[in-house]
Formats: sequence, structure tokens, C-alpha cells
Amino acid sequence: MKKGLFITFEGADGSGKTTQLNNIKTFLNEKGFDVVVTREPGSLELGQKIRNILLHYDGVVADRCEIFLFLADRAQHVETFIKPAIDEGKIVLCDRHTDSTIAYQGYGREQDIELLKSLNEIAVNGLKPDLTMLFDVSTETAQQRVGNEKDRMESIGIEFHRKVRNGYLELLKENPDRIKLINANNSIETVFEDAKKIIIDLINRN
Amino acid sequence: MKKGLFITFEGADGSGKTTQLNNIKTFLNEKGFDVVVTREPGSLELGQKIRNILLHYDGVVADRCEIFLFLADRAQHVETFIKPAIDEGKIVLCDRHTDSTIAYQGYGREQDIELLKSLNEIAVNGLKPDLTMLFDVSTETAQQRVGNEKDRMESIGIEFHRKVRNGYLELLKENPDRIKLINANNSIETVFEDAKKIIIDLINRN
Repeated sequence: MKKGLFITFEGADGSGKTTQLNNIKTFLNEKGFDVVVTREPGSLELGQKIRNILLHYDGVVADRCEIFLFLADRAQHVETFIKPAIDEGKIVLCDRHTDSTIAYQGYGREQDIELLKSLNEIAVNGLKPDLTMLFDVSTETAQQRVGNEKDRMESIGIEFHRKVRNGYLELLKENPDRIKLINANNSIETVFEDAKKIIIDLINRN
Repeated sequence: MKKGLFITFEGADGSGKTTQLNNIKTFLNEKGFDVVVTREPGSLELGQKIRNILLHYDGVVADRCEIFLFLADRAQHVETFIKPAIDEGKIVLCDRHTDSTIAYQGYGREQDIELLKSLNEIAVNGLKPDLTMLFDVSTETAQQRVGNEKDRMESIGIEFHRKVRNGYLELLKENPDRIKLINANNSIETVFEDAKKIIIDLINRN
């Protein structure tokens, strides 16, 4: 492997993607790979300030404002963190990335999906995941798992989350080579086995 | 006047635009108009948080991150403040707006000007100033006026500020109906007289 890999983890809150990301990190470390774990939004100091605005602001955040804040965080993250890590040969595991914008703001909030795709392109400036793992879970199961600890993004009605899930499944149809579906209704152990197979397959191809 | 007016004030730091904006506000108040004064970036509570990131962050801010932060502030400002004020029949005087993005990020930092124009269009969602007053001052004079109290945006070399000024003059050429030039090398009194004439002309036409 001459340069690193960029792998994104997508799905609803409550899909278990963050747990699996950490499992995959341990698994890859044991195999001797240099792995870095990150997330969007808010992985960097500057991104954290942006994330705080997005998640904890009491007033009304205009839709377009929210989109641009996510994109600002993403542009900074890609330019100053993800690209340098990949160039150093690392495997970057990223919790949420461009597909979250399309699923949540596009399908969930019903904003202009083509516009969002164009804006994502601008933010990432040429970077594309080598693999996206989509942890698909029924909206009811996800909601039960999340329980009462909801932030501003999570405390929206169940209809919204159904639209988000549908959005992810549309993205899967459009990007069958990049995005791989994992049935996240299963047990943590089963989901981990499925995720490992996909990762091993990717590494063997690189 | 059925609805309000949107007037933007543009030019270099040290051009005196903010002083003149306040003079114009007093003048219009005395004429009985309902005037609100605002600025970009950072006029709202949310915008202030964004402005703090932009002006006082110690680390490297990626170019595209900076652009998106400015646009987030603008989108919020337009949607939650400027448009409602205009709809209420007010005259909105705004210190910096879309042209600053083109002049500073486009011409100054040499980022893609057509891309920035498209992004501005997205951020303002159809809003356009009825008038833009461009306070044009020689870069040397502006620098002398600003003196030592420079923030992150101002503490860049003189060559940058020359490119910004040139950018504003290009925008003037492209938008002769909207943008009006004022020679801001003159005394405060003369500049105010020139600005007043332009404002009176606008109001008489509406």
C-alpha cells in the first residue's frame, strides 16, 4: 500500500457505527496497520467550535447557515487532517462525512440534493472515500438505542429519521462500488464480523 | 416606499466606510426613516461566534473553511435579520456583504471568483442590495489610517490589499447600476456629502 486509505462510517445515530469504528480500529491495529480515528463534525479544535454552534445553539439556525457550517468543518478537516494522514500512509476511519450531509440535510430536511452534492465537492476538494460502510438499522431500533440522550440533531421526529434512512439507501444505489451495506439490526458481534469481511476485502485489493 | 431598502457599504479597512455608515444612519433618522445598522461577519449572536473563529483562531484556517464560515454567517444574517427588516419597510445599512467575499477571498487570496459568486448566490437566496456604496481609498492611506490595531484579516501584506482594491474596482465595472464609487481619500465631510447625494438619489427613485 503506497498511500493510506480513507474509510467513512455512515448511518443513523443508534446504528452502532461508532462502536464498530472502534472495533475496526483495534482489529486493524492488531494487523499492524497505522490507523487514525476521526469524525465529522467537530474533530479538530476549530471544528469543535463549529460543532458546538451546531449542536447547542438555542436560537433558530437557518438551513443554509447549518449547511455552510458543516461544510466549513469538513473543508478544514479534509485539508488539515484527512489528506495529510492519507499521504502519510495511514488508514483514516471517519465517523460521518459527505453522505451524512446528503442523507440528513438533503433527504431529511428536504433541501436541494444536487446543490448539496456540488457543495460537498467543493468542500472535499477532490478527496473521495475508498470505502463507505453504511450501517443500516430500522428507525425504530435506532430510536430505542439512542433513548433519551438526544442532542439538537437527534431530537427531531421519527418521520425525519425515516427520510434520512431512505436517503442513505438511495446513495447506496447510486454508489454501489464505494458504499457497502451492513445490516446493523444484528448483534454487535455479527455486525463486526460483516464489517471485518468488507475491510479485509478492501485491504486485499489495495 | 412599500418595502424597505438594502444598502451595503464596501471598501478597505481604513476607508472610513463604518464612520460614514453611522453618519448616513443619523442623516436618515433625521429625515424620519426607520434605519437598522448591521455588519458582516458577526452581527448576530450566532454570527459573533463565527466571527470569533475567523478573526481570533490561532491555527491555520483552510481557505475553503474560511469561505464557508463567512457564507454560514451571511446565510443566517440574510434569512433571520436582513430580509425580515426589509419586509418591515426598514432601510438596512450593512457594513460589508457579498462584494467583500469576492474582493478579499477572490481577488485578494486569488480563489476561484466564479465559484465564490455562485456560493454567494446560494447564501443570499435571492437577496440583492438596492445600492452598494464603494468607499475607494488608496492602499497607503488605508494602511496609515488602520495603524497598528490589526486583526487577523488586516495583518496581511500591502500587496494583498492592493489586489483587494483592484477587485472592488472590477466589481464596480461589472455592476455599474448597483455599485456607486465614492472617493474616500477625501475628508470625512466631503465623503459624507458625496455619500448623502447617492442615498438621496436612491430614495427619490423608490
